[in-house]
Amino acid sequence: MFLKNAWYCAGWDYQVSQGKDAIVARKIAGKRVVLYRKSGGAVVAMEDQCPHRQAALSLGRKEGDALRCMYHGLKFESDGKCSEIPNVEKVPEHICVRTFPVVEMDNWIWVWMGDPAKADPALISRGVGPSDPDFTTRPSYIQVNASYLLENANLADLSHSSFTHDATIAMGLAQALAKPTHKVIPRGIKTDWWVRSVPVPKFVQHLFPPGFLCDANFDVTQTYPCNWMLHFRVFTAGTATEGESDGHLVLDSWSCQAVTPRDAESVDYYYSWGVSKKTEQPGLADLLKEGLDAAFNEDKRMLEAQQQRVKEDPHFKQMGIGAADGGPARMLRVIDQLIREEQEAERPTAVAA
Amino acid sequence: MFLKNAWYCAGWDYQVSQGKDAIVARKIAGKRVVLYRKSGGAVVAMEDQCPHRQAALSLGRKEGDALRCMYHGLKFESDGKCSEIPNVEKVPEHICVRTFPVVEMDNWIWVWMGDPAKADPALISRGVGPSDPDFTTRPSYIQVNASYLLENANLADLSHSSFTHDATIAMGLAQALAKPTHKVIPRGIKTDWWVRSVPVPKFVQHLFPPGFLCDANFDVTQTYPCNWMLHFRVFTAGTATEGESDGHLVLDSWSCQAVTPRDAESVDYYYSWGVSKKTEQPGLADLLKEGLDAAFNEDKRMLEAQQQRVKEDPHFKQMGIGAADGGPARMLRVIDQLIREEQEAERPTAVAA
Amino acid sequence: MFLKNAWYCAGWDYQVSQGKDAIVARKIAGKRVVLYRKSGGAVVAMEDQCPHRQAALSLGRKEGDALRCMYHGLKFESDGKCSEIPNVEKVPEHICVRTFPVVEMDNWIWVWMGDPAKADPALISRGVGPSDPDFTTRPSYIQVNASYLLENANLADLSHSSFTHDATIAMGLAQALAKPTHKVIPRGIKTDWWVRSVPVPKFVQHLFPPGFLCDANFDVTQTYPCNWMLHFRVFTAGTATEGESDGHLVLDSWSCQAVTPRDAESVDYYYSWGVSKKTEQPGLADLLKEGLDAAFNEDKRMLEAQQQRVKEDPHFKQMGIGAADGGPARMLRVIDQLIREEQEAERPTAVAA
Repeated sequence: MFLKNAWYCAGWDYQVSQGKDAIVARKIAGKRVVLYRKSGGAVVAMEDQCPHRQAALSLGRKEGDALRCMYHGLKFESDGKCSEIPNVEKVPEHICVRTFPVVEMDNWIWVWMGDPAKADPALISRGVGPSDPDFTTRPSYIQVNASYLLENANLADLSHSSFTHDATIAMGLAQALAKPTHKVIPRGIKTDWWVRSVPVPKFVQHLFPPGFLCDANFDVTQTYPCNWMLHFRVFTAGTATEGESDGHLVLDSWSCQAVTPRDAESVDYYYSWGVSKKTEQPGLADLLKEGLDAAFNEDKRMLEAQQQRVKEDPHFKQMGIGAADGGPARMLRVIDQLIREEQEAERPTAVAA
Repeated sequence: MFLKNAWYCAGWDYQVSQGKDAIVARKIAGKRVVLYRKSGGAVVAMEDQCPHRQAALSLGRKEGDALRCMYHGLKFESDGKCSEIPNVEKVPEHICVRTFPVVEMDNWIWVWMGDPAKADPALISRGVGPSDPDFTTRPSYIQVNASYLLENANLADLSHSSFTHDATIAMGLAQALAKPTHKVIPRGIKTDWWVRSVPVPKFVQHLFPPGFLCDANFDVTQTYPCNWMLHFRVFTAGTATEGESDGHLVLDSWSCQAVTPRDAESVDYYYSWGVSKKTEQPGLADLLKEGLDAAFNEDKRMLEAQQQRVKEDPHFKQMGIGAADGGPARMLRVIDQLIREEQEAERPTAVAA
Repeated sequence: MFLKNAWYCAGWDYQVSQGKDAIVARKIAGKRVVLYRKSGGAVVAMEDQCPHRQAALSLGRKEGDALRCMYHGLKFESDGKCSEIPNVEKVPEHICVRTFPVVEMDNWIWVWMGDPAKADPALISRGVGPSDPDFTTRPSYIQVNASYLLENANLADLSHSSFTHDATIAMGLAQALAKPTHKVIPRGIKTDWWVRSVPVPKFVQHLFPPGFLCDANFDVTQTYPCNWMLHFRVFTAGTATEGESDGHLVLDSWSCQAVTPRDAESVDYYYSWGVSKKTEQPGLADLLKEGLDAAFNEDKRMLEAQQQRVKEDPHFKQMGIGAADGGPARMLRVIDQLIREEQEAERPTAVAA
């Protein structure tokens, strides 16, 4: 079950070029969506099935700003109206394809899957995109065959990093032993926490003197469906104060992640890690990307096995452990409530007798 | 749902040789069928499961005109009777495997899946086979993972050619703009139409002077399950009259196509395109085959995506557009009626009180 | 449906080494199980899902004799008790993972999937393992995507050998024509029979003079779930008497086979064929393994096609043939009864009023 009135990330802007054949098929929250750019660059998002016989519009042809279905030749303008049917003099008004509001923000394409009247761009989760001039950022992508709810639970609790990512991005046991507090915000949770005098992750240890320790701050905003924006700063241990801090900054970075449910059992995961110009070094952004790619393959393996077990054994009574459950519990409650509220609002009102 | 009392094409005759191990497994209208040839050449079609424990007879061994199940050694004569069970002195009468009437016609093997008493060879859809001495014909094959009903709709309306086959066999927009009329015949529809002063398809344009135009006649007979026989003639533009015509004939050809449902979601598609000896040139039949192979891969891509959407979104309210719907609507109505009539005939009659 | 109170073979002992990363995932009778060795070598079998959030423990880390879940770091001792949860001072008593009794016997690892109190090692089906000093034995493995019930029927009647294994291990028509009698024993059946003056199997014929004939004795014990232990002796034809026999022994061998259901439609098949030291020759055990591997691929093809047909056509009325059905009928009845008895014992008792 998915929220309709929400912005879903449909990918990186560079994935939809102005190319003649650049027509991109996606599955978003269970619905097939086709994306292409008009002249001028605006992205069009349409339901990826022709209203005539459900042919795939993503197998169609761009004609100016319109998209022609290449099965029977119906031509759809970028607002979804059918402007031409071969051999039909006057196209009936009602023939059209559904379009979805689109906004590009932070180099991501965002699609609103619900009531267009409610599509407020201010609801979009903000991050730092690859084109931000103050950061050097590498975008990446992975498909994970697991529910976005398992992804939310994964991202709402970084303690797993110390185990799942021991060989890559973990800071020793620091994340497992931290006790972050999570604040519920509209459509998600916010978590801001420090770890102190901890080792740097294994995948970057060769860049530091042996035994080098650091302080680090994680400032995370996680919102529906699973948009996860992290401002991540690393300081030489003992030099950082809370808040902005004027300590010795080793790394100032943003990792921005958008996990879009394809259907109930798989997600498209668009993510990046960018280093600020002030802490940049040649090759550093590339290393961060490599580290994150490796870590997300570790998560993929873990989550896909978990998905398999949850599916095979849906009545298994999971046991809470306290500590690590705080973030996931809050985030999953937020999602559950958003969906229930939307469904109740859609229900026809009972008329009093 | 399939018609039982119908001839289904089970493949090209050359696919079932007299070889010692030439035992061919098919799935036809949901049923598994095994084919082999007796000495003398007659094809036997049996249900492809041993009545004992449902082992695959297609994993069996030809012994003379009989087929032995290689699980427990039951031997079945070509009429389906069990003639030998190892260690059993007298084979019980009732042990037998179902056989199906078979006819070879136009180099196709046709199997009747219903009541043998009704298996009238006159019901077989006729075409021009590869062995017809007046034509040079190349047979081919493709599997398409889509319902035979989507295939019927596809073939009952050639307007799609102008779009789906724009790069291969389309004659520009000619097919999309034509207004053929469809005549309902027993078990199908018949369509006979002309296009005039139209370009030749792209895949043969290099053989003609620039700007060369032609007249062309499509004479199509389409019957259940999805047998599609086309007499296709091309003339130098302006030289052809209706009917037989004595215009300047550029191509006289037959394309014969038999689409057999394997199950509800996939078909075996056996097809050919043959050129008459009078308009033949070395390599021309090969080119026609290449063009048709390319076109049918275009269809396959389109139909499989359509099948996927129809399956995912079965309550989608498709919108009629008029023009292109005439052929498919008639053909699908014919199929629907055939199946309903057969089912009603099978229903036990209510006894009046 | 599977019996719970039973020993299931979880593989060859050499498949679970003492290696740091030697953590083996299995599916046994529908349940996911993880195996590893403690220091000292004892095998631990645990349910392969963390009680916290169903993560796969088989993606975990061995720590001494314990296994740590590498999702959130819960550490489980070899008795299943959780001994550590990061950030949690006192681990709640109830947090534990289910463990299963394990016994190693004849180089196989046996796991008891039911009530530990009933796990009597005397119930384990005995064979001759690769480490038996009196035999030279080669272990092997195949996965078959068919029900263990079809495997039981296959193994309870060797008449199929004459057909399915005609090219490999069959002794001509000898097995098909034999009339063994099957004796019901606790949890299975026992079959002891001779074939006389029969050819040796094709895969070994090159080792014998042309026309060489033999007598052979099959002494088989088959028990739930599908453990099949064969003492197989071959003599020069005419030299063997019943029972122990002091005839001219050509081959004294054991083939021990354990077929473990993964789920309702697939099995793990661990098997071996070993030749006694007194009839051994260099390379002979290797040849026996090659022959059995080839034969089991023949079975796999046959059984997977049968499984497919049984699944597609579950209401097909199979026809008994007598002869070959005796063994399978008895064995399947034993299994059916074992499962029914267990289910009835589990049902809450009705209290008399």
